[in-house]
Amino acid sequence: MEMQRRPFIRTTLGASLVPLAARAAETTTPGKLGWALVGLGSLSTNQIAPALQMTTRSKLAAVVTGTPGKGVKWREKYGLPAEKIYNYENFDTIANDPDVDVVYIVLPNSMHREFVIRAAKAGKHVFCEKPMANTPDECREMIAACAAAKRRLGIGYRCQFEAHHLEAVRFAREKVFGDLQHIDAGFGFAIGDPTQWRLRKKLAGGGALMDVGVYALQACRYLSGEEPVEVSAIETKTDPVKFAEVDETINWLMRFPSGLTAKCLTTYRFSGCEGFTAYGSKGRFGMQPAFGYGNFKGWTSNPEIPLAFPHVDHFLAEMDEFSRAIIEDKPFVADGTEGLRDMLVLDAVYRSVASGKKESVGKV
Amino acid sequence: MEMQRRPFIRTTLGASLVPLAARAAETTTPGKLGWALVGLGSLSTNQIAPALQMTTRSKLAAVVTGTPGKGVKWREKYGLPAEKIYNYENFDTIANDPDVDVVYIVLPNSMHREFVIRAAKAGKHVFCEKPMANTPDECREMIAACAAAKRRLGIGYRCQFEAHHLEAVRFAREKVFGDLQHIDAGFGFAIGDPTQWRLRKKLAGGGALMDVGVYALQACRYLSGEEPVEVSAIETKTDPVKFAEVDETINWLMRFPSGLTAKCLTTYRFSGCEGFTAYGSKGRFGMQPAFGYGNFKGWTSNPEIPLAFPHVDHFLAEMDEFSRAIIEDKPFVADGTEGLRDMLVLDAVYRSVASGKKESVGKV
Repeated sequence: MEMQRRPFIRTTLGASLVPLAARAAETTTPGKLGWALVGLGSLSTNQIAPALQMTTRSKLAAVVTGTPGKGVKWREKYGLPAEKIYNYENFDTIANDPDVDVVYIVLPNSMHREFVIRAAKAGKHVFCEKPMANTPDECREMIAACAAAKRRLGIGYRCQFEAHHLEAVRFAREKVFGDLQHIDAGFGFAIGDPTQWRLRKKLAGGGALMDVGVYALQACRYLSGEEPVEVSAIETKTDPVKFAEVDETINWLMRFPSGLTAKCLTTYRFSGCEGFTAYGSKGRFGMQPAFGYGNFKGWTSNPEIPLAFPHVDHFLAEMDEFSRAIIEDKPFVADGTEGLRDMLVLDAVYRSVASGKKESVGKV
Repeated sequence: MEMQRRPFIRTTLGASLVPLAARAAETTTPGKLGWALVGLGSLSTNQIAPALQMTTRSKLAAVVTGTPGKGVKWREKYGLPAEKIYNYENFDTIANDPDVDVVYIVLPNSMHREFVIRAAKAGKHVFCEKPMANTPDECREMIAACAAAKRRLGIGYRCQFEAHHLEAVRFAREKVFGDLQHIDAGFGFAIGDPTQWRLRKKLAGGGALMDVGVYALQACRYLSGEEPVEVSAIETKTDPVKFAEVDETINWLMRFPSGLTAKCLTTYRFSGCEGFTAYGSKGRFGMQPAFGYGNFKGWTSNPEIPLAFPHVDHFLAEMDEFSRAIIEDKPFVADGTEGLRDMLVLDAVYRSVASGKKESVGKV
């Protein structure tokens, strides 16, 4: 199997980037950019920090945590100097830290807006976990703040840098299985601990849709290369106690300008739905699993055209690609506008759930 | 591979049959019931008549056609006496034909109601192609007519007698892959000849949804063993000339009482979407293709639990099962109420398309 890495071909999704000239790289650590992680939860601990030990253009430069004990552990584990352990009170002094080029926001969704804006104001490039924020307006504020600070903004869409997904996008663009007609996509899992922040609306902004549904939506958008114009959604809730504040299961339909349609599922109720099937006029292809941290499995309706690649750490790939975009002053596909476009669709899905009607997707 | 044939276990779907005592078999041809085919189009010619050469409880006894030339061909091909070639004017005299036990209505959808009622009034058991009719009220009339005539009514739901589907239903009922949580199903094909009756609303009643979407709906209903309570649908049309009168593509969502959800696609725009995936709490299973005349392919997430059976002619199976139900005076799962239940959902889907809102499914 040959490892193929191709950039997304953006024929329809317009990349409304900040003018390149305004984003001249100012790397203080030539070769590798220094990354500061904001929020030391499971994702930072188990995925991002280990990936930063393997990256070639990025390195762990600092952390920001509200828990002093975590700071001590991270100092010991990663050999960070004491002054590289920031807290939420002194976070803004990171502006004076020349070792930090990029601030990676790994906080609960509702805190993304505030910390992206603070990081940009501190003069740092910003990388923000998905979902980008809670509302389209928050996304717009974040994009504007980074543009005003002349700093880059990237969103943690791992799959956009993963070989199976990139090859699937090539299948779609080059019509390897004919014109794309329909996409079925879903991502869900049986959520555990009922006390976690993901189930608190104030912190998470929403439930399964915000957390994992966004992967299914992303797949539909980057496979189709189109923006949905209309959605229709139905929410179901079997455990109104556990899911008192956020959505448990949402199914939604999307209509795209070309006539392509998509149907999606997201859930916190059960595991095992994690992938997509793309139906072309000449065949099918898909992945299952497709959105977790690995073990991806692709397939196509033509045994002679495989969809199989070796595993590469997704966080490594997304961080090094963001660093490269900054160093080389090149566009980064998973930018703030990309996050906003998703948020516009999620917003329409929630409006459809509330109204019981089809809803139009808002404009960037 | 062991061929398994199991009856549907109807735990939730209540079978509201005509009292058994009223349906005593009056077979005039012991061993095999005589079937009359009404409408000699492609389905009768290429599927049903060949199947009737292989059936063990059913045999071709007569045909009804409006085209004298077809009658001649069928006489020659199947050795039918001249008096067994009926036309639409003398159809009702079939009441006096002791060789005909069952009348199989293979006409365009809009003619189902009239000919089912006429066949019942002629004292014959009636088997009717899907979709049963154009509206729930038509279905109710047909059920009432057969009940009044004390004759059986069956609907041509081939898959309910097919080994893969029966095994998939067993997986669901016996929770082989845990509790069923979600079903994705679809059936569509790129329709050819723009002059065919399927594209005329007056004859077909509707488009892809009526013709093939009903298979996806059926799968959701018999796999879940539940009736959907609410649907939401979006219609798309890329060729408003060809599909001026009927639906081209409809996606729809269904919510079931247990919390199970389903999303479905039907289309006349492209081929290749023909199957279902059922998501259980402990694994997945599905079929693709699943609804055509053969070449079925099943799969499961557990390599030790296959979903694979030899092909058996579907028309042979459905006709012999209907004959057996009559001969042995036993229930027949694909009865008129089963057809009505589907029609109630299709009606809700069309109402949702028209209103742009979620719609409730009507009651039997």
